Amino acid sequence: MTIIITAFERSPDGGKGLARDTRVRWALEEAEQPYGVRLVSMAAMKEPAHLRLHPFGQIPTYEEGDLVLFETGAIVFHIAQHHAGLLPDDANARARAITWMFAALNSVEPPILELVIAKILEGDKPWAQERLPLVKDRVRERLTQLSARLGDAEWLDGAFSAGDLMMVSVLLRLRPSGLLDEFPSLAAYVARGEARPAYQRAFAAQLAINAA
Amino acid sequence: MTIIITAFERSPDGGKGLARDTRVRWALEEAEQPYGVRLVSMAAMKEPAHLRLHPFGQIPTYEEGDLVLFETGAIVFHIAQHHAGLLPDDANARARAITWMFAALNSVEPPILELVIAKILEGDKPWAQERLPLVKDRVRERLTQLSARLGDAEWLDGAFSAGDLMMVSVLLRLRPSGLLDEFPSLAAYVARGEARPAYQRAFAAQLAINAA
Repeated sequence: MTIIITAFERSPDGGKGLARDTRVRWALEEAEQPYGVRLVSMAAMKEPAHLRLHPFGQIPTYEEGDLVLFETGAIVFHIAQHHAGLLPDDANARARAITWMFAALNSVEPPILELVIAKILEGDKPWAQERLPLVKDRVRERLTQLSARLGDAEWLDGAFSAGDLMMVSVLLRLRPSGLLDEFPSLAAYVARGEARPAYQRAFAAQLAINAA
Repeated sequence: MTIIITAFERSPDGGKGLARDTRVRWALEEAEQPYGVRLVSMAAMKEPAHLRLHPFGQIPTYEEGDLVLFETGAIVFHIAQHHAGLLPDDANARARAITWMFAALNSVEPPILELVIAKILEGDKPWAQERLPLVKDRVRERLTQLSARLGDAEWLDGAFSAGDLMMVSVLLRLRPSGLLDEFPSLAAYVARGEARPAYQRAFAAQLAINAA
């Protein structure tokens, strides 16, 4: 069955790969699954036709026959569960890889989202400069814990998994802030993710749209 | 195999059920699985023995034989996948229920967490009063979209699932703010979750510790 995902007609990041369709493209490339892309404008994302696919009016969505999914974590998990290459076969190792997916999305991404909001949505507020160091310190706390756990391992738990795909994708959002470079082992971890051929193909595919 | 979870020795909320072990207890009660609890002090959470179980130094954790999991979403998912009662059998319905788990944790909880942080961690900052309405409006935006999707349905997608368990648990964090009551259909949805016998048992179990 044909897989169709949605992506921004024009990504707010201009093609840096930070829009969330890149995470889904990456998973599809790791799983070697072909897919089509339907581009959606900012206006169309908030209209009823798109809201039927995605209640929060965002991208990406995922359509495969009768199945409609939203929420990047759920889409990547669905791909990982139905194709080889993103989750280990051993039941316990699989549960731990899934744990890292949730950890990326619910423990690491929230403080990073807060930093993005502090800079973009609240960058012009009178408190912006005084508040920013607090927000950055909350991100640093998580990165300190994450880098302690990673140690000098290549990936978070054995072989590369959907947990790493999600964690690398979440950490990539930090690069513009300079915070990632404060943690060399995490910066190297992210670079290993970006060096994967599947990530390269995913990145190129989203760039081709945004550079057009 | 015996299941052991960790919980706060003394929950910061004094037993209101907002600590995340309640979510795991609820899932275990829905799945009718017995479990043991190991209580952890705030100091012990940050010590090496606990950090080996949970890299971010939090509760809950989940131990079952050789398997150690952290991250509430992953633990609830693991329980849901191995026992009846929390995920539908039909493959597409199952994928959609899992989607709501991720949506609760990555789309709805982050703005709610921001509100908790704005009040608790930044409540004494000079910008607190002026900034609070912005944070609340970001929560309201999500609640508006969520209540539009829920409509007059009982649960988010067919029968009660782990997606509802997670969404109700996330929305419960909003009750002290009064924001939940601005959305009567969501307040009623949360009340339906709380009325489930499994939730009642989970709530009572955590209260028994914190009232002691």
